[in-house]
Amino acid sequence: MPDSRPIGVFDSGVGGLTVARALMDLLPDERILYFGDTARGPYGPRPLAQVRAFTREIVDHLAARDTKLVVAACNTATAAAVESSDPLEFGVPVVGVIAPAVSAAVRATRNGRIGVIGTVGTISSGAYDRAVERVAPDVKLVAQACPRFVELVETGRTTDPGVLEVAAEYLAPLRAADVDTLILGCTHYPLLTGVLSYVMGPDVVLVSSAEETARRVFATLVDNDLLAHAPEAEHRFIASGDPDAFAALAGRFLGPRLVDVEVQPLRAASPQA
Amino acid sequence: MPDSRPIGVFDSGVGGLTVARALMDLLPDERILYFGDTARGPYGPRPLAQVRAFTREIVDHLAARDTKLVVAACNTATAAAVESSDPLEFGVPVVGVIAPAVSAAVRATRNGRIGVIGTVGTISSGAYDRAVERVAPDVKLVAQACPRFVELVETGRTTDPGVLEVAAEYLAPLRAADVDTLILGCTHYPLLTGVLSYVMGPDVVLVSSAEETARRVFATLVDNDLLAHAPEAEHRFIASGDPDAFAALAGRFLGPRLVDVEVQPLRAASPQA
Repeated sequence: MPDSRPIGVFDSGVGGLTVARALMDLLPDERILYFGDTARGPYGPRPLAQVRAFTREIVDHLAARDTKLVVAACNTATAAAVESSDPLEFGVPVVGVIAPAVSAAVRATRNGRIGVIGTVGTISSGAYDRAVERVAPDVKLVAQACPRFVELVETGRTTDPGVLEVAAEYLAPLRAADVDTLILGCTHYPLLTGVLSYVMGPDVVLVSSAEETARRVFATLVDNDLLAHAPEAEHRFIASGDPDAFAALAGRFLGPRLVDVEVQPLRAASPQA
Repeated sequence: MPDSRPIGVFDSGVGGLTVARALMDLLPDERILYFGDTARGPYGPRPLAQVRAFTREIVDHLAARDTKLVVAACNTATAAAVESSDPLEFGVPVVGVIAPAVSAAVRATRNGRIGVIGTVGTISSGAYDRAVERVAPDVKLVAQACPRFVELVETGRTTDPGVLEVAAEYLAPLRAADVDTLILGCTHYPLLTGVLSYVMGPDVVLVSSAEETARRVFATLVDNDLLAHAPEAEHRFIASGDPDAFAALAGRFLGPRLVDVEVQPLRAASPQA
């Protein structure tokens, strides 16, 4: 029996759309209900108790809209309220973004040295250090804050020489530490995959928390018989702030649209051999 | 000096759109000119000489449209004309999809056992065996044809229990062989990432030829100073067959579109701590 209720996804802004998109890719028959708390984000600089209160409020809102599962597509909310030592209890299952990425990274590393990059708030919170310590105490984690990446992504700069230069500077300590696996510990960073891959070199496996979280949700839905079957699923996007600003950024995060298709005749195919 | 010429991408049909999309993700400032030879695809069952002639014809067509680089987003064309022991020469640089994926997989494996899945044509051609032998003769490659996957993807079936059952059957030999890395050796398969990841389990690293090829193109453009800077890049799609059928499938491959954004007011934020 398909379960047609939507999957809730929330973030303090637009970054969580990379998670929403990974879900749409892996689970095209699911409806997504996305909540971007753009009026109050980013959460990084806010006190822990406030982040917990905001998380509670938004999860309750999404649960009231009959979601079957909610993804906290926000590193700060995940660390403060979902995967913390004192997780909040909710009326709906809630999946965070840190544990799935850490789990994938500790499995992917060959030399036992993993890097993680994120915002200043996420890195200084120590959330990734604790998560790695919990599942693989022998693995060495090298953490690096990348303060300018979010601004670069939101202004559409993901490939130019200036971005490459900034990335080379941020990532130098990780290269020097010889990490062979790199966790993208901020939902904005999948848009920098090209630059990150180029700077780290081909030997380094990149682990996207967006993709790994989507895989976790996929497995959770299958294991609990919660899959929907809604071809041409309609997604909904909610912002707590200016919807036009949200829509402008969201287009970049959700990817390209199909434009016109033109016909180009070629020679007719001869019969197949 | 930015190079605003488009990147050409071609395939025997729509599958190469996963490669086009990976390029759009990594290189949002580049224009893509996609050619789907839907009137003559799939190429798998065709004689080698014919595939080489078709490849030559399409690359010439894309070169005449002033592309700066062409991606052969088709395993059959890559094996026959681009990465073969006797590659064709073209008037424009051409990147194939097999070498980038094999290169990433041999770097990602921890136990030296890699799996590859693909169409009957690709697997029986031995192209992946030769590519692995070339760069990592000590790595064991286990190849498995998955005849029904393309049809399942093209009919929009990527998550249901029937798909899981088919995948479990196809992948059983790879699980039994204890591969720790799996190459998705067909451009359709990134749409099955959820199922493949679920069936193989969290210890197995999935390598998408679409993503790895896009990384290779990114590095090629940077290293040769060929990056464009065209915000809001317009892509073009060309089909040799019915454009409506192409458009209908292409929407699924290129991913979700943004729909309306609604406003949901929340409590005002108190000043940040």
